[in-house]
Amino acid sequence: MPFVTTDPTFEDVLAAAERIRGRIHRTPVMTSQAINHMAGAQLHFKCENLQKVGAFKARGATNAVFSLDEAAAQRGVATHSSGNHAAALAFAAANRGIRAHVVMPRTAPPVKKAAVAGYGAEITECEPTLEARETTLEAVVARTGATFIHAYDNPMVIAGQGTAALELITAVPDLQMVMAPVGGGGLMSGTAIAVSGSRPDIVVWGAEPVGADDAYRSLRDGRIHPSVQPTTIADGLLTSLSDRTFRILSERLEGILTVSEANIIRAMRLLWERMKIVVEPSGAVSLAAVLEHPGTFAGRRVGLIISGGNVDLDHLPWSNDSIR
Amino acid sequence: MPFVTTDPTFEDVLAAAERIRGRIHRTPVMTSQAINHMAGAQLHFKCENLQKVGAFKARGATNAVFSLDEAAAQRGVATHSSGNHAAALAFAAANRGIRAHVVMPRTAPPVKKAAVAGYGAEITECEPTLEARETTLEAVVARTGATFIHAYDNPMVIAGQGTAALELITAVPDLQMVMAPVGGGGLMSGTAIAVSGSRPDIVVWGAEPVGADDAYRSLRDGRIHPSVQPTTIADGLLTSLSDRTFRILSERLEGILTVSEANIIRAMRLLWERMKIVVEPSGAVSLAAVLEHPGTFAGRRVGLIISGGNVDLDHLPWSNDSIR
Repeated sequence: MPFVTTDPTFEDVLAAAERIRGRIHRTPVMTSQAINHMAGAQLHFKCENLQKVGAFKARGATNAVFSLDEAAAQRGVATHSSGNHAAALAFAAANRGIRAHVVMPRTAPPVKKAAVAGYGAEITECEPTLEARETTLEAVVARTGATFIHAYDNPMVIAGQGTAALELITAVPDLQMVMAPVGGGGLMSGTAIAVSGSRPDIVVWGAEPVGADDAYRSLRDGRIHPSVQPTTIADGLLTSLSDRTFRILSERLEGILTVSEANIIRAMRLLWERMKIVVEPSGAVSLAAVLEHPGTFAGRRVGLIISGGNVDLDHLPWSNDSIR
Repeated sequence: MPFVTTDPTFEDVLAAAERIRGRIHRTPVMTSQAINHMAGAQLHFKCENLQKVGAFKARGATNAVFSLDEAAAQRGVATHSSGNHAAALAFAAANRGIRAHVVMPRTAPPVKKAAVAGYGAEITECEPTLEARETTLEAVVARTGATFIHAYDNPMVIAGQGTAALELITAVPDLQMVMAPVGGGGLMSGTAIAVSGSRPDIVVWGAEPVGADDAYRSLRDGRIHPSVQPTTIADGLLTSLSDRTFRILSERLEGILTVSEANIIRAMRLLWERMKIVVEPSGAVSLAAVLEHPGTFAGRRVGLIISGGNVDLDHLPWSNDSIR
């Protein structure tokens, strides 16, 4: 296995960019004068909702899958995920022509299950608890010999996620700040490594729902607070930091800004209405942070990563029948 | 007034492209493997929903406004429109620093009125009939001396709309067919002139809702059928052809394909789900035509113009409470 056992480095991000080139989209960076006017800042949105499988996760999964040696690859890959990482790993495995085994909670949105199945992955359903996910995954790995690719606690995954920020700061060299949402910390760690490794003058912020602010509290207190019963519409940001992502974020982030549910929904709707792009709630959290903390960003040139666009169009947060 | 009195030519489209460059977006051309697979064709979507004001109308309005001589420009511009042309003219006038007067039916969607007002145009409301719109507009023009810029029966507007197709066939030179939706025929006329003037080997199709198939019947019978009580969710395609657009389409189109409401909604949802872009019903009509007439497009490389993305997010066609 070529996996590095230490934390991923800036060189790993550069290698990931080479490895995944042509297998994923180089997504556009979009702007909106109307949103800039509202925010009082120059915002540059890296549109990973327009990425393959509709989320940045395609980057990390592709980097991890194509890093495997041939013998390991032939035994396939496996993961547990309720969402975008599952589809991303299925996509990456299909691209390499190997098998993917995905353990999904039976409560996962049908649209996400369909996406995973559409890439030809084998889905094993389990109860919607972390324990059930892990034990079910262990059984799958024991049976198949597949390599477990964790959604974020994996150096190759983190390095792959960092390629989005690398493209962003290449496309907009005069950025002063970069911000990404924080769930398990994979995107945020990759972003921080990519930016601090190439442009240490750019300040890196994280953004997190106030109802799932475990990373905020972890960085504040210098120790990991697990994410216990998080309540937020941003369903991609429910997970806890790992030791690895906690360590990386502690070293490299300016800080984490928390945002209200109302501002997440407001930011999401602004992106749909003004930029005409479909963004999932987690993908709107960075913009929500700009709206909620205007003093931090006033007059600055800020790069924001829109993490994904996979949303159930039958349950939008501004419709009456949606689940809040 | 520099307006040509004859039909616009390919040279007018080229001149328009020069005139509006830098004032509007050069929109991306997007593809989706999933949609290609469903359609059995290679589809290239020209994303005018990502255009300024959220629709191709910014092109024609900008070309018309910047074609005015200084004396006429100082008296302002005026139009009647229930939708995207109103916002486009307001945007273009604001860009040139001149006044825009917009007559809108009082029933126009609030989001469209807000967009027009947001560009600083003066709105005059009227009853939702063509007669009321025209008489109210006449009064505004008589009072202000503003130049009337018709939404589609205007050579400079048509030439401007043609620049979208010009960009599309430049970006994807090996296209075999191009298709656009037909309302009053402004976009369709400009598209046909741009394509036939530069690449006469490319076949040009129109697409129209079966519930608003006046252009289809007009071309079939060789005379204009006015659009009487059209019923379609594609609210940008309700208007009748003018003598001018009828003449241009009669000469240059391969034909017009009609589509069901169900296929418009299906195509719209596909674009949202698979391409993560917000498209209004009218903007999905070209894809609906590919889905409804697969034999015509099987295996072909087809350029489709997505005309706009201005939609009321509170009333989506797949939600229970929406107006069908």
